Amino acid sequence: MEVARPMLMAELSRSSGVPVATIKYYLREGLLPPGTATSATRAEYGERHLRRLRLIRALLEIGEIPVAAIGHILAVVDDESASLHVMLGAVQYALGPHPTPPAGAEADQDWQAASHEADVLIAGLGWTVAANAPARTLLVATLAALRRTESAPPGPSLRAYAEAMAALAAVEVASLDPGGHADEGARVVLAESAVVGMVLRERVLLALHRLAQEDASSRRFA
Amino acid sequence: MEVARPMLMAELSRSSGVPVATIKYYLREGLLPPGTATSATRAEYGERHLRRLRLIRALLEIGEIPVAAIGHILAVVDDESASLHVMLGAVQYALGPHPTPPAGAEADQDWQAASHEADVLIAGLGWTVAANAPARTLLVATLAALRRTESAPPGPSLRAYAEAMAALAAVEVASLDPGGHADEGARVVLAESAVVGMVLRERVLLALHRLAQEDASSRRFA
Repeated sequence: MEVARPMLMAELSRSSGVPVATIKYYLREGLLPPGTATSATRAEYGERHLRRLRLIRALLEIGEIPVAAIGHILAVVDDESASLHVMLGAVQYALGPHPTPPAGAEADQDWQAASHEADVLIAGLGWTVAANAPARTLLVATLAALRRTESAPPGPSLRAYAEAMAALAAVEVASLDPGGHADEGARVVLAESAVVGMVLRERVLLALHRLAQEDASSRRFA
Repeated sequence: MEVARPMLMAELSRSSGVPVATIKYYLREGLLPPGTATSATRAEYGERHLRRLRLIRALLEIGEIPVAAIGHILAVVDDESASLHVMLGAVQYALGPHPTPPAGAEADQDWQAASHEADVLIAGLGWTVAANAPARTLLVATLAALRRTESAPPGPSLRAYAEAMAALAAVEVASLDPGGHADEGARVVLAESAVVGMVLRERVLLALHRLAQEDASSRRFA
C-alpha cells in the first residue's frame, strides 16, 4: 500500500482502515505524530503515518497491549539510540500475562525453590536474560504452582523444553534481523513484525503442542 | 493426605480446603457423588470424595474450565468404557481458547489456505488428530491471521515447530501412562495430572519461549 503523495485526514482513514475519530484520539494521546499543517484547519499525512497506524493496530489487536503501554513502545521505536534488543524487549515485556510474585514471596518455600530452579536453568544454559524479565516471573510462578500440585506428571525436563525453545527462538530472532542500519521506517516495520511474530507464533506453538499431545495420546492410549 | 475412615461434611471441608457451601453446590450440580447416608440428615464421605474435589478444583482453578464443561469431563472419567485417549481428549478439548471459524469461512481465501496448510502439515507428520479438534481450529485461525498480516517475519517452518512439539508431547503423554489397568482412583488422578500437566506445561513453554527470544535477541542485537 505505497502512497507517495500526502493525504488529508479522510484519505489517511480510508487507506489505513482506521476511523477518523480513532486517528484523532491517537493524535491527542501522542501515539501518532502530527501531520504537516497546510492551513489553520488542514494537515497532510504521509507513508510514515500509515506505517505507524498499522503498528498501533498490531500492538492493540494482536498484542492486546493497553494504549498506555503502547506509548512507551513507540517512544523506544522512535529513539534511534535504543538498540534493537531494547526495542524488541519493550514489545515483549508489554505482552501479557504479567503474574506478580505473591505477597510474602521471600518466605514462600515453593516460590523460593522455583526461583532457584529458574536461576539454575538459565545459568546452565548460559542465557542472557534480565533479572526482572516478566517471562522469568511467569516461569517462576508456574514452577511454584507445579510444586504446590501433588499431581504434576514428571514429563520432560525443564532443560528439554528450554533447548527446544532456544532452537526455535534463534531462527525467529534471526528472521527479524534487518541486516545493517535500521532507519525509522525499518524500526517501525521491525516492531510490528516483532509483535506479530511473537504473539501469533506463541499461538501456533500452543496449538501444535496440543495436536502433538492428541497424536501421542492416540498412539499410546486409543 | 490419606484418610482411611469416613468423614462428615465438616471434616471433608477441612481436609479438602473447600468450603461446605461449595461442596453442597457441587453435590447439587452432580459434580460430586452423594455420600453414604447414615441418618436422615447425615452422610459420610471418603477418600473418593477428597480425590474428586481435588480434581474439580484443578479443572476450575488451573484449567479455568467452566462448571458446565466439568460435568462432561467427570462423566467421561467415570465411564470406564471410555479409553484413556478419550478421557485426555475430554480434558484437553475443554481448555481455552476456543476460536470459531469466521462467518463465511468457506469463502475466506486466507482461512481456506490456512486450513489446507494445517491439513498438509498434519498429514505430512502422520499425526492422528480429530478433524474437529479445537487445537486444529486454533492453528488454522492463527495461520489465517499470519496470512492476513503483511509484516509476519518468516521464522522457523511450521514443521520445525511441530517436530519440536512432538518430541516434548511424546514424553509428556508417556509420563501420564498409568501402566496397565486404570481403576476409578487411577483415572481421577490421571485426569487431574492431565489438566495440571497440560495447562502448567503450556505456561512453562510460553515463558521459556520468551526467555529464549530475549537471549537470542541479546546475542544478535545488544
